[in-house]
Amino acid sequence: MSRERYRAAAAVLGDRAGTVVEDAVLDVEDGMIAWIGSYTDAPPYDGELTRLAGLVAPGLVNAHCHSPMTLFRGLGEGLPLDRWLQEVMWPREARLRPADVTAAMRLASAEMLRCGVTTSVEMYVYADAVAAAVHETGARAIVMAPLLAAPGWEHLGTLEEQLERAARQAAEAETDPMIEVGIGPHAAYTVPLDILGRAGELARAHDMMLHIHVAETEDEAAELEAEHGLSVPRLLAEHGVLGGRVLAAHCVWLDDADLDVWAAHDVAVAHCPQSNAKLAAGIAPLRAMLDRGIRVGLGTDGPASNNNLDLWEEIRLAAQLARLRALDAQALSAAEAFWLATGGSAAAVDRPDLGQLEPGRAADFCHVDIDDVAFIPVESPSDLLTHLVWSAGSQHVRDTWVAGRRVVADGVCLTVDEAAARAEVRERSAALAR
Amino acid sequence: MSRERYRAAAAVLGDRAGTVVEDAVLDVEDGMIAWIGSYTDAPPYDGELTRLAGLVAPGLVNAHCHSPMTLFRGLGEGLPLDRWLQEVMWPREARLRPADVTAAMRLASAEMLRCGVTTSVEMYVYADAVAAAVHETGARAIVMAPLLAAPGWEHLGTLEEQLERAARQAAEAETDPMIEVGIGPHAAYTVPLDILGRAGELARAHDMMLHIHVAETEDEAAELEAEHGLSVPRLLAEHGVLGGRVLAAHCVWLDDADLDVWAAHDVAVAHCPQSNAKLAAGIAPLRAMLDRGIRVGLGTDGPASNNNLDLWEEIRLAAQLARLRALDAQALSAAEAFWLATGGSAAAVDRPDLGQLEPGRAADFCHVDIDDVAFIPVESPSDLLTHLVWSAGSQHVRDTWVAGRRVVADGVCLTVDEAAARAEVRERSAALAR
Repeated sequence: MSRERYRAAAAVLGDRAGTVVEDAVLDVEDGMIAWIGSYTDAPPYDGELTRLAGLVAPGLVNAHCHSPMTLFRGLGEGLPLDRWLQEVMWPREARLRPADVTAAMRLASAEMLRCGVTTSVEMYVYADAVAAAVHETGARAIVMAPLLAAPGWEHLGTLEEQLERAARQAAEAETDPMIEVGIGPHAAYTVPLDILGRAGELARAHDMMLHIHVAETEDEAAELEAEHGLSVPRLLAEHGVLGGRVLAAHCVWLDDADLDVWAAHDVAVAHCPQSNAKLAAGIAPLRAMLDRGIRVGLGTDGPASNNNLDLWEEIRLAAQLARLRALDAQALSAAEAFWLATGGSAAAVDRPDLGQLEPGRAADFCHVDIDDVAFIPVESPSDLLTHLVWSAGSQHVRDTWVAGRRVVADGVCLTVDEAAARAEVRERSAALAR
Repeated sequence: MSRERYRAAAAVLGDRAGTVVEDAVLDVEDGMIAWIGSYTDAPPYDGELTRLAGLVAPGLVNAHCHSPMTLFRGLGEGLPLDRWLQEVMWPREARLRPADVTAAMRLASAEMLRCGVTTSVEMYVYADAVAAAVHETGARAIVMAPLLAAPGWEHLGTLEEQLERAARQAAEAETDPMIEVGIGPHAAYTVPLDILGRAGELARAHDMMLHIHVAETEDEAAELEAEHGLSVPRLLAEHGVLGGRVLAAHCVWLDDADLDVWAAHDVAVAHCPQSNAKLAAGIAPLRAMLDRGIRVGLGTDGPASNNNLDLWEEIRLAAQLARLRALDAQALSAAEAFWLATGGSAAAVDRPDLGQLEPGRAADFCHVDIDDVAFIPVESPSDLLTHLVWSAGSQHVRDTWVAGRRVVADGVCLTVDEAAARAEVRERSAALAR
């Protein structure tokens, strides 16, 4: 592939410092970023140049998601987490078939791509169907092979069978550069500890990500500790789950000692502020995590508990809740908040090849309209970043590229027939309700 | 004016119970709602019918705003409230001229109308300029005559002169059905108590709204109490400020006894969750206010501390923060959250003629696209309301009417040349920065 050059009004790099480059050039070669910087410093180029009136930003990385739950958006409104799972979600999910998951994931990918989200960590049943749908849309995903023993989930097979399937999927996925496979034991309250330990072994043996829900609600954390005499992080450490590439979702109810366990084992966190707020789980100790050097990314969680896949909303809410928890407007800066969804999320999901506009990383990026009132005024380049976090959002994303390929143009997803996808999900959702 | 009929896929009425009518008819006559209900029950009609593919909802009511601060959006990012006011905002505001305010208010009105916000409570300097700009855009506003003694604000004149001006503006505004004038003493820490008492007298004499900031930050509340030996609500009661049509913004740091003072004097509250979060002020006791029967509406606060005028974001955040404060997913329902921005806000700003789709109220309404993925699935009509609160937003508002007049069509504001308005605000903002 020859080099392609984009020239934009500005580039927000997605690094922790919040660097913004004015009059920026982004060069793409073989799906990778070959050069990024100021137009005046750009290397010689004699190809065609694509002018972008707005700013370019990295494709966002959604660090925790159950995207096919698009089928169940908004159902069980107002119930606490345990009742919502047991009374509304699990009975419906027991009726799910792979074709439902494919249809919902296809629509969810289109939604994410239109939002400028180019990578998601997917944890759901029928991982093959999830991976196939993502691949078809041109997005990237880290797809967890599920591991769950709960009523209604017997069709997943025994936990032994689930472990074997996970190992097989990991081996097969190595051929697809857009899809990575991990293993996703649901939680320490739904998967026996010995099986969790074996999942940890399997993950380390195959160098796979292990992704698990941890301490989402106060009750869950307290009940596990009462039963085992150890907090969830210590329990996981004790049973050999940690030590590999572990990503823990939520982590709302962790104390300082628990965070020390995370730091000691380099466990990363998928922070899901909107889900935690809607379901009244609590406010996770984000600032304390970051201060310990724990890798943190942002996740939407599933559209049934969010209720959409718009990661921009998580950026703003992460900053708001960190500030409210500390009663300190300096508790999370706009730059750090944006980094949490880009470079920070990429680090959290152990993918240093994604998440920032930097040579050598993947050419996953989006083009954001800055002509709107949300971007007035701009006194210094850093104001663009402030506006991205505090006044703009996914509605300002015009175009999205993944691996250098344009998948969204002027707000329209090019890889999915969205009208057809919507109609199919409506039908399948209605059928699952019966 | 003859009757006009709209037929929409559904109508969300904006009442506290969260009523949703499927296949709805909305009849408008002389700028008022003449009939609302199910198509099958609609009265005979032989005029032209306008079909709306989505749902109709009441125009939202923004209960607390400093819209012309569009000029200063995002500036002073990350500073605590006192430094942000004293170091960034007040020096710039001291250079403001009426033409700056007119230009900014015009653009802000366009932004709000595109979001489906049809009424705002405006508290800013040069109230005449604010009112004129709102009038020009076809929106409604309750415009506060300012009352403030602070460094940089000497151009407002003495407090005596400000009081006289407020009385004059109230008398003049009675001729404009779209603009109501109130009096807006900034706060108990910026206006002497005797002047606050006289503002209360003036407001009661003219039956004007009195709008004031109360207990936004912990320090402000504590310092006033330390100085006077009374909490801010008791202080205001003591000095004759209460008893009329009083709307208090923020009210983050009020305890039960303070809320009893509000209830006893029928003081309404403008709850501004996003501003309170961004500036790390705290989480207001919304549930406790509602449980006491205190009238509460939602406000965006100014775009310099929000940083936009999108009241839909306040709806979701109000629900999230109420649930987080209580750690209870039932602490605020989707229906109540939506009502807070519509019927609830209208009651809070003492305008029972606004905020709900009900015969006899003003025909202020918006048309929301429900074809998007954010509205999938719909199993029962109440799911539409759930989606409005949790997965949709202002980006789904297609058209807006105020007093029966269409002011936004397919996302474009018909009453403001937005490109010109943006250019003018950019220029004026840059000039004020110098």
